Amino acid sequence: MPLAVADNSRLCLHTITTKPWPIETAAARYAAAGVQGITVWRDALDDRDPVKVGAMLRDSGLEVVSLCRGGFFPARLAEDRAKALDDNRRAIAEAHELGAPHIVLVCGAVPGLPLVEARQQIAEGIAALLPDCAAANVKLAIEPLHPMYADSRSAINTLGQANDLAAQLDSPWVGVAIDVYHLWWDPALEREIARCGRLKKILAYHVCDWRTPTGDLLLDRGLMGDGCIPLRQIRSWVEAAGFNGFNEVEIFSTRHWADDQDDFLARIVTAYHNHV
Amino acid sequence: MPLAVADNSRLCLHTITTKPWPIETAAARYAAAGVQGITVWRDALDDRDPVKVGAMLRDSGLEVVSLCRGGFFPARLAEDRAKALDDNRRAIAEAHELGAPHIVLVCGAVPGLPLVEARQQIAEGIAALLPDCAAANVKLAIEPLHPMYADSRSAINTLGQANDLAAQLDSPWVGVAIDVYHLWWDPALEREIARCGRLKKILAYHVCDWRTPTGDLLLDRGLMGDGCIPLRQIRSWVEAAGFNGFNEVEIFSTRHWADDQDDFLARIVTAYHNHV
Repeated sequence: MPLAVADNSRLCLHTITTKPWPIETAAARYAAAGVQGITVWRDALDDRDPVKVGAMLRDSGLEVVSLCRGGFFPARLAEDRAKALDDNRRAIAEAHELGAPHIVLVCGAVPGLPLVEARQQIAEGIAALLPDCAAANVKLAIEPLHPMYADSRSAINTLGQANDLAAQLDSPWVGVAIDVYHLWWDPALEREIARCGRLKKILAYHVCDWRTPTGDLLLDRGLMGDGCIPLRQIRSWVEAAGFNGFNEVEIFSTRHWADDQDDFLARIVTAYHNHV
Repeated sequence: MPLAVADNSRLCLHTITTKPWPIETAAARYAAAGVQGITVWRDALDDRDPVKVGAMLRDSGLEVVSLCRGGFFPARLAEDRAKALDDNRRAIAEAHELGAPHIVLVCGAVPGLPLVEARQQIAEGIAALLPDCAAANVKLAIEPLHPMYADSRSAINTLGQANDLAAQLDSPWVGVAIDVYHLWWDPALEREIARCGRLKKILAYHVCDWRTPTGDLLLDRGLMGDGCIPLRQIRSWVEAAGFNGFNEVEIFSTRHWADDQDDFLARIVTAYHNHV
């Protein structure tokens, strides 16, 4: 049986997990709870200056782990693909200012646009951003999304595909984000995590749980331990593949956003030790 | 561009598609609409005699295409796995009496039971039924289910896995059911359909569509043309793999069950010609 986490030293939260809190509150509460890292969702920046937010987070004792999220490259019209690149360039600038070493990519999909075309547009979109990444010292983490999002959120739906794409792009500015929610069901998961490690591409590891029944395709993720994902087993594969970065708690849940967020944070920390 | 269907000669409906109708009404309305085949869900049999239902369906001019559904093999306790086998043996008897040549298998999964164990129990369950299949002249069609059902409905989530399992069991009584709703997103789909054809394992082909957004994980399937699945392309792959059986319309939808069922049936037939 894989071991429990030793302590909080690799515990990171995504701001979206405690969406009701403004980022200043999140920073203070996370730090007080012993959380060590924070992944910033762009909506949490709102009209704030990313430079000041980054300083505030570090002053709170938190490491800025990543910025969520860029991507959404495919579109039917070239002008819309160009707009997507512009938005990704803004995200790269924000990550640089914030001091985030990478951006998580939700790669995109358009209902009815053939998946093979969407995948080609994703590859082209990422390739077009590589000079900006190098200039800003910000990497891009391809996050394969669950196949239930293949219609409109991502045409990259398995770790095998993300590994293929990262290998094809062959850039030091491109890696992969591994999220248990999207990938736990895949019979090739252990093998593809090992391959991602051999490629030196694992940039991030995200955890939550899969509830039974799941009431909503998007906003019913579970707290670790409230579902069926073999969290310790998957973490053991990721660590065996050489990853020793943060375990990032990313939970979108209308159920948990309605909870008292201080109570929820305390339960996250307990669940992290008991289940991740 | 793949061709439209020529006529109704390969059009089959699942009784669940028009769930509000008792099977006698469904048979009469399907036949009047030019539908040629029917797949019977076990709930539609209720307390009826399958022998008489089969005769009624054939007298209506319908071919009995299959019985839905068997499976749900995995369980934590051996006694529950034995109960599942008993229920599958009842399904085999019903299919025989009804005159259905095969049963569609939703293979099963148990939240928290490791998927590798569930898959082993599925293989053992199917293997245990093979003598019953031979005696009843009824085949079993492994239906890979969408990964969003890996928690509680099926640990077989890609056509590659279904092909592997069918190849491993290596029995003339085991084949595969290909359902676009479950498989459309898979980058390996064309290759695995071709492989399924080479294995001579394609027993069934199910169609519907994937709506954006999808409001419910189970009961929001779309009418063909109302979603993003490349139906003609996938049918062209299935036919290139040697399949020339029925195109079965299987739609679970609280939205469409609330429609006038005569109107819905007319729209199904139109959508079949325009989109399948």
